Amino acid sequence: MEKTECPGFLTAGVACGLKKNGQKDLGLIYTEKSANVAGVFTRNLVQAAPVLLDRQRIAAGVCRALIVNSGNANCCTGEAGMQAALRMAQSAAVGLEVAEDEVLVASTGVIGEPLPIEKIENAVPGLIEALDPDGVLNLAQAIMTTDTVPKVVSRRGEIDGKPFTVTGVAKGAGMIRPDMATMLCFAMTDVQVDSGLLKQMLTASVNRSLNRITVDGDTSTNDTALLMASGVSGIKLENPGQQETFQAVLDDVLITLAKWLIKDGEGATKLVEITVKGAASDEEALRIADTVANSNLTKTALFGEDANWGRILAAAGRAGVPLDPQKIDILFGRVLMVENGIGCGPAAEAEATEILKQDEYDITIDLKMGRCRDRVITCDFSIDYVKINADYRT
Amino acid sequence: MEKTECPGFLTAGVACGLKKNGQKDLGLIYTEKSANVAGVFTRNLVQAAPVLLDRQRIAAGVCRALIVNSGNANCCTGEAGMQAALRMAQSAAVGLEVAEDEVLVASTGVIGEPLPIEKIENAVPGLIEALDPDGVLNLAQAIMTTDTVPKVVSRRGEIDGKPFTVTGVAKGAGMIRPDMATMLCFAMTDVQVDSGLLKQMLTASVNRSLNRITVDGDTSTNDTALLMASGVSGIKLENPGQQETFQAVLDDVLITLAKWLIKDGEGATKLVEITVKGAASDEEALRIADTVANSNLTKTALFGEDANWGRILAAAGRAGVPLDPQKIDILFGRVLMVENGIGCGPAAEAEATEILKQDEYDITIDLKMGRCRDRVITCDFSIDYVKINADYRT
Repeated sequence: MEKTECPGFLTAGVACGLKKNGQKDLGLIYTEKSANVAGVFTRNLVQAAPVLLDRQRIAAGVCRALIVNSGNANCCTGEAGMQAALRMAQSAAVGLEVAEDEVLVASTGVIGEPLPIEKIENAVPGLIEALDPDGVLNLAQAIMTTDTVPKVVSRRGEIDGKPFTVTGVAKGAGMIRPDMATMLCFAMTDVQVDSGLLKQMLTASVNRSLNRITVDGDTSTNDTALLMASGVSGIKLENPGQQETFQAVLDDVLITLAKWLIKDGEGATKLVEITVKGAASDEEALRIADTVANSNLTKTALFGEDANWGRILAAAGRAGVPLDPQKIDILFGRVLMVENGIGCGPAAEAEATEILKQDEYDITIDLKMGRCRDRVITCDFSIDYVKINADYRT
Repeated sequence: MEKTECPGFLTAGVACGLKKNGQKDLGLIYTEKSANVAGVFTRNLVQAAPVLLDRQRIAAGVCRALIVNSGNANCCTGEAGMQAALRMAQSAAVGLEVAEDEVLVASTGVIGEPLPIEKIENAVPGLIEALDPDGVLNLAQAIMTTDTVPKVVSRRGEIDGKPFTVTGVAKGAGMIRPDMATMLCFAMTDVQVDSGLLKQMLTASVNRSLNRITVDGDTSTNDTALLMASGVSGIKLENPGQQETFQAVLDDVLITLAKWLIKDGEGATKLVEITVKGAASDEEALRIADTVANSNLTKTALFGEDANWGRILAAAGRAGVPLDPQKIDILFGRVLMVENGIGCGPAAEAEATEILKQDEYDITIDLKMGRCRDRVITCDFSIDYVKINADYRT
């Protein structure tokens, strides 16, 4: 097991009774000294109470703790939901002896059911008791919903000979579509960065990772990605070179987590990176990649390991982007399957079918209209996805 | 069996060997005299050869015949595909002794495989032989792909004491999302209308029927809806009252066919009409209805008969339309399930769950922001949808 500890942070995860199966459902991040913090949140107009609260509190750019529960999204719960979010933060603030407005809150789970706040309040003392530099895995377990594995990624870098750490945890397997942060993702680092720069770097990373994935095209009401910087490594990001080094490590952590979310996507058996190149603009490349990555017909064909490139072309054609079908090439891995809008025949199809048997592969769509590109990471659409989501609340 | 004959039209459907299972796959509509015609076609930028050909030919506003095959979409087939479409029209023109450019063509089936045009040419003499005023059911069978039943709707109306007929056939169970005509739909009438007015009335009807349905959010490359008017009833649509009478019958035929497509949607077990009212504009109402109707999480919950209204609110919130979540009401049938953004509790949920057990029901989302409304008809998302589409080409 790799080392996941991030200097300056204590973490914990316990069971407080929100999940019917008795598994961990309450997590905590505590910073020994005040940390700088930045966050990005769902663009869904329906937003959970904890998202509304965090948006206010994060404006100050500092925090001491984050308390998070799974098993209930505390969304569409009205004024009572906001009161529950405030009480959740307050119980952590009292126990940790920190200012209430320096505690952030997150929730994930079923939408529209009242949050049983007493269960959380009763469990907070034990949660604080459990805080540990090595508690990251417990935290990751406490935020799981339909995830099958806890997701922790920790990377080390070096700036001017001094080591630093970025540790991230994330959850999310359904209701996943890139539109701001996707699902819950909490990253910690021990570098010293002001919250403005932190926000800039977090946003850049999220746009390369969590904002480039989709499981089912549905955007959550609770999406939250936070980056907290304890500064205890003593490293300051003062020049562009140092910032670049840090950004690369942060990117690595978030891209690894984002791919992990897809691999563990509800019912997913494949991770497929859809790249659109030769586009007239980055935005158009993204729009086509996103449309193909969310096409149910494309995704069911991926599940069936069927090199049904006609569905990919048909999805590209409805993306609302001007294109010339008779110029388009499509590659499965490195196999040229479609050239200038026409299939390359049975031999190419046989080769492509071999690629489709793999667990992970790329599909490249070359529009030959310009020099821009983007990519979206998707999974296949399986029978298990339907089973999981038909029965989610029962 | 209701009478489906439409005066002035002969129809036929035979098997020519495109479908591996030997079922009917080649259809023909023939008008004894030149008919006025209007059409609407897919907005997908990737368009099949027959769509490209019909777009040219329909400009003249008249036609004598339509030849259509299933089992192969003749799409992404390049110049050879266009030659095949031309030969398909030509073979019908020669056999029927009509002008080649008065023959329209349609295809549906797998994208990207060359159309075996010889099979069609060999079968055309037999197809012409089979023409019959009562051949509509055979035609409907010949255009089926994953449809489980042939779809024919025939209605009669009366203008100034004289009877007229509108008969429509349609196919389509997957790759269905409203964006211009969806799938293949051919309507015949014996009223006398010039092609300009015909186009206007067809477009109005399509926007209330075929453009308001979705199975899976994927727009076909072959979508074609045609309306042909033989004029043999002697009825001319000269004043607004007559036009209104005709429009109502045409609406009835196309809405009935549209709903039938959804009921027979791939894997579908439910037909659900998603109405958005209280919107600031019709366009915004449609956008939200469309987003909810295409939400995989909403559709899997419908399949699971789970009144998971949080998913409906979450989908509405990502539609890109300004809204106030704390004003929204949601009704399942007549059961108020969400009031001002908050769930109405277990009793309402129990009632709603009973509604969800029905085969057909409505969901109404009231935004309370204005007076506009629209609706989209959708189906649930089932395990069988995935099975059908994972294995479609095998």
